[in-house]
Amino acid sequence: MSEQGICEKEAFLADSVVGEWVEDWLYALRHMEILAIEHEDQPVSYRELAARVASRAAFLEERGVARGERVAVLMTHGLLFAITLHALRYLGAVIVLINARLSLEEMVWQVDDVEARTLLCDEAHEAQRVAISERLAHVRAWRCTVQMEEGARVFIPAPVCLSHVQSIIYTSGTTGRPKGALLTYGNHFASAVASALRLGMLPTDRWLTALPLFHVGGQAVLMRSVIYGTAAVLQDRFDEAAHRARLLRGDITMVSVVAATLQRMMDDEVAFPAALRVVLLGGGPAPVPLLERCIARGVPVVQTYGLTEANSQVATLRPAEVSSRVGSAGQPLMRTNVRIVDGHGECCPPNGVGEIQIKGPTVCAGYWQEKTVRSALAEDGWFHTGDLGYLDSQGYLFVLDRRKDLIISGGENIYPAEVEAVLLSHPSVIEAAVIGRDDARYGQVPVAVLAVHPAYNESALLSFCRERLAGYKVPKHFLVVDRLPRNAAGKLLKREMRLWL
Amino acid sequence: MSEQGICEKEAFLADSVVGEWVEDWLYALRHMEILAIEHEDQPVSYRELAARVASRAAFLEERGVARGERVAVLMTHGLLFAITLHALRYLGAVIVLINARLSLEEMVWQVDDVEARTLLCDEAHEAQRVAISERLAHVRAWRCTVQMEEGARVFIPAPVCLSHVQSIIYTSGTTGRPKGALLTYGNHFASAVASALRLGMLPTDRWLTALPLFHVGGQAVLMRSVIYGTAAVLQDRFDEAAHRARLLRGDITMVSVVAATLQRMMDDEVAFPAALRVVLLGGGPAPVPLLERCIARGVPVVQTYGLTEANSQVATLRPAEVSSRVGSAGQPLMRTNVRIVDGHGECCPPNGVGEIQIKGPTVCAGYWQEKTVRSALAEDGWFHTGDLGYLDSQGYLFVLDRRKDLIISGGENIYPAEVEAVLLSHPSVIEAAVIGRDDARYGQVPVAVLAVHPAYNESALLSFCRERLAGYKVPKHFLVVDRLPRNAAGKLLKREMRLWL
Repeated sequence: MSEQGICEKEAFLADSVVGEWVEDWLYALRHMEILAIEHEDQPVSYRELAARVASRAAFLEERGVARGERVAVLMTHGLLFAITLHALRYLGAVIVLINARLSLEEMVWQVDDVEARTLLCDEAHEAQRVAISERLAHVRAWRCTVQMEEGARVFIPAPVCLSHVQSIIYTSGTTGRPKGALLTYGNHFASAVASALRLGMLPTDRWLTALPLFHVGGQAVLMRSVIYGTAAVLQDRFDEAAHRARLLRGDITMVSVVAATLQRMMDDEVAFPAALRVVLLGGGPAPVPLLERCIARGVPVVQTYGLTEANSQVATLRPAEVSSRVGSAGQPLMRTNVRIVDGHGECCPPNGVGEIQIKGPTVCAGYWQEKTVRSALAEDGWFHTGDLGYLDSQGYLFVLDRRKDLIISGGENIYPAEVEAVLLSHPSVIEAAVIGRDDARYGQVPVAVLAVHPAYNESALLSFCRERLAGYKVPKHFLVVDRLPRNAAGKLLKREMRLWL
Repeated sequence: MSEQGICEKEAFLADSVVGEWVEDWLYALRHMEILAIEHEDQPVSYRELAARVASRAAFLEERGVARGERVAVLMTHGLLFAITLHALRYLGAVIVLINARLSLEEMVWQVDDVEARTLLCDEAHEAQRVAISERLAHVRAWRCTVQMEEGARVFIPAPVCLSHVQSIIYTSGTTGRPKGALLTYGNHFASAVASALRLGMLPTDRWLTALPLFHVGGQAVLMRSVIYGTAAVLQDRFDEAAHRARLLRGDITMVSVVAATLQRMMDDEVAFPAALRVVLLGGGPAPVPLLERCIARGVPVVQTYGLTEANSQVATLRPAEVSSRVGSAGQPLMRTNVRIVDGHGECCPPNGVGEIQIKGPTVCAGYWQEKTVRSALAEDGWFHTGDLGYLDSQGYLFVLDRRKDLIISGGENIYPAEVEAVLLSHPSVIEAAVIGRDDARYGQVPVAVLAVHPAYNESALLSFCRERLAGYKVPKHFLVVDRLPRNAAGKLLKREMRLWL
């Protein structure tokens, strides 16, 4: 930090009552020649990234993007996304991540709801840019490319505190309209630190993400990398073959995946490289048979449980615990508190199933435009996740399912994830989802939606289930489809499947 | 964390206004079979360490050691020190680290000044235990061993917040009586996090320390290890041969050293093992020639600048910067702010030399029994280190010397460390210290105190200096001694040498 920086900081702190100054993480690395981003096989050093970000920030400032402004960003071009993310932070603006897989209606609603004056798009989203600007005449919708400015600019990042909002990410929520979760710089710092303490971190790490950057897990990879000073390896489209080829080149140390991707790599008997230290498996409860196959083959898979409102990870297994704690998402990250609450609002005893509630420095500051920020979470500061699970007697978290996905059949609880794990352990099943169908006698009964191999035989699968599950958990119907619907993060879209019944 | 833990935490937080709950770091690891401590070649797992600590805490509680009490600890037995450190934390007591190399007078003064009711000693300090209890009749002075309790006990750690004081370490200060620096749990957490972000951290790390555990750097190795869940490798006496043998066995990844130790290892052309990721060099400005030799031989040395009041590291080089920033202690750790202030209290421009002042979450809460805690540091929260240095235009810190060691000769500033580096680069010099001698004409002149090889020749060394230093910096006298006086941490005791002149 230069003396100029110090003076500005002092002045800023004197004026500010909101909290603790954050030195810009990228700015601190601006002289370093080490790898910051590898984008489509092109290396970008921290020096180059910081120079591009400074130029972009100056460019946007000249065009009137102002501190505190919410700027909607619709991009899948990884390097452009990273430049934009950091440039908006240099300006002290708030980035609003628009999910590129949303319908036009949904995009228009979010841009409008968040009261953005500016929308930044990459070239791949030109059609949406035009359509949104036709619908929202007051929004300046600009097409951006990596190469836009003329010449290098100097730009000192706007001062921010840990409590300042960095981004808004809309989450689908359990009911009604999506809500914009407010993620702060403090959420990012706490999350990066807690992840490093759980998984380890080396200055030479290269983290490959198959997650879209506009999801919480994708953005978190970029933010962590500038906090650590490590490299993020980005690919524009999630192309499974390209992703796999990059992973297998041998220099990747960390990778974030969802179960479906990992399942296919295991099916294809991919040889994972020795340098790969952590395969971070998120996006929902993982089938135990998949985890067991990974462990047997020495794949360094660690299960994690995360959500948008906690800026990704809530609990993650330690790499050393993988084989002794199969099926658990691990202990909560350091400084994150987890409790399990039953239907009467009481804490459950160990192994008792209830709603997972969390509290800690990674939990978002609230939702956009909720009157009382904290009450949007819960009056006592605990965030109610809507997910069901339990803590064992040693404090390890087991996530069963989304509460809304719970099937209650004749008074018995059926956790779809448990039934799905049995289905997925059968060799003829590629993908499986279990959902509840209304039933006059039992209230609900479980139904399976499957993608299968040619060898599939329904009665064989039914026998397989009957051997492994209580009768009320065995699906009453098997619906075979080509491919299960998933969102951009690879999560099953059960809402959509329920419409099929 | 068990539900019992959650309930206690809720009750504690409801009663507490002091800050943020800390889950006990060791307690969270109590089920893990991974290595916690290797002590004199004996492995101790986290499970075993936590069991011993719980038993010890119960034992001490039964004998009346109470929450908030300051307990003086005089131990060099590493495993016993670690058990005692964590047991006092389980009790919510404050550990007072007594430097085992102090004179009896000094020990008595510290135990009395800190108002300790209890003194815990290992068997090696039986004579001091008896003598102190004769002098301070109200102090219960107990001899401790690793094996003391009968059977295992359950002990739930007392709740603490990040702002609570964990330990008191007396620092010699520049003048007058030593002062007890108050180190908090928050200091430890911030320090461990900032060190991991700068140096990297792997769950498989093994950190060997040659520093006594009763110094800030030694205790920090133990505290970091339970925050990371990694292993600390301890040896009771600092025996250079044993230390070197352990380092060279090949599994050590991190080691803390001072320049004199490293210098001897380089002289002996030790082959450093490949797994060794970081050689953390502290304890004063390092001679550039030593750093250059390390770099040339591929030894992963990184210079750090630290002090007791900042719970060890303030600034540390990134491993990737070692060869391009020789002589710098690196940028300040993340969240630590450094400024350089001239004699008029003004911030210096880049490259301007002044006093190093620091602010941040690793800076201690104050000194024991200072009326106003913050004013003991500085009214504006900046801690005045008394060390001289500068920040270059890219924010890299260069530490020149202790301000009290600065020699002013005929109006010129002479930084002893600069002259010492030249002396140490001469093959006949083993150790060197440069101090100021009063002089009627120049105010002060520099004088060298040396330990030398048999080949030493004063006039040859004088010519060597004249070729490399301005005339006023060349020592006016060379005093040859067998060995230079150093404190327990290996730092030169210049005060003592000044008495010789």
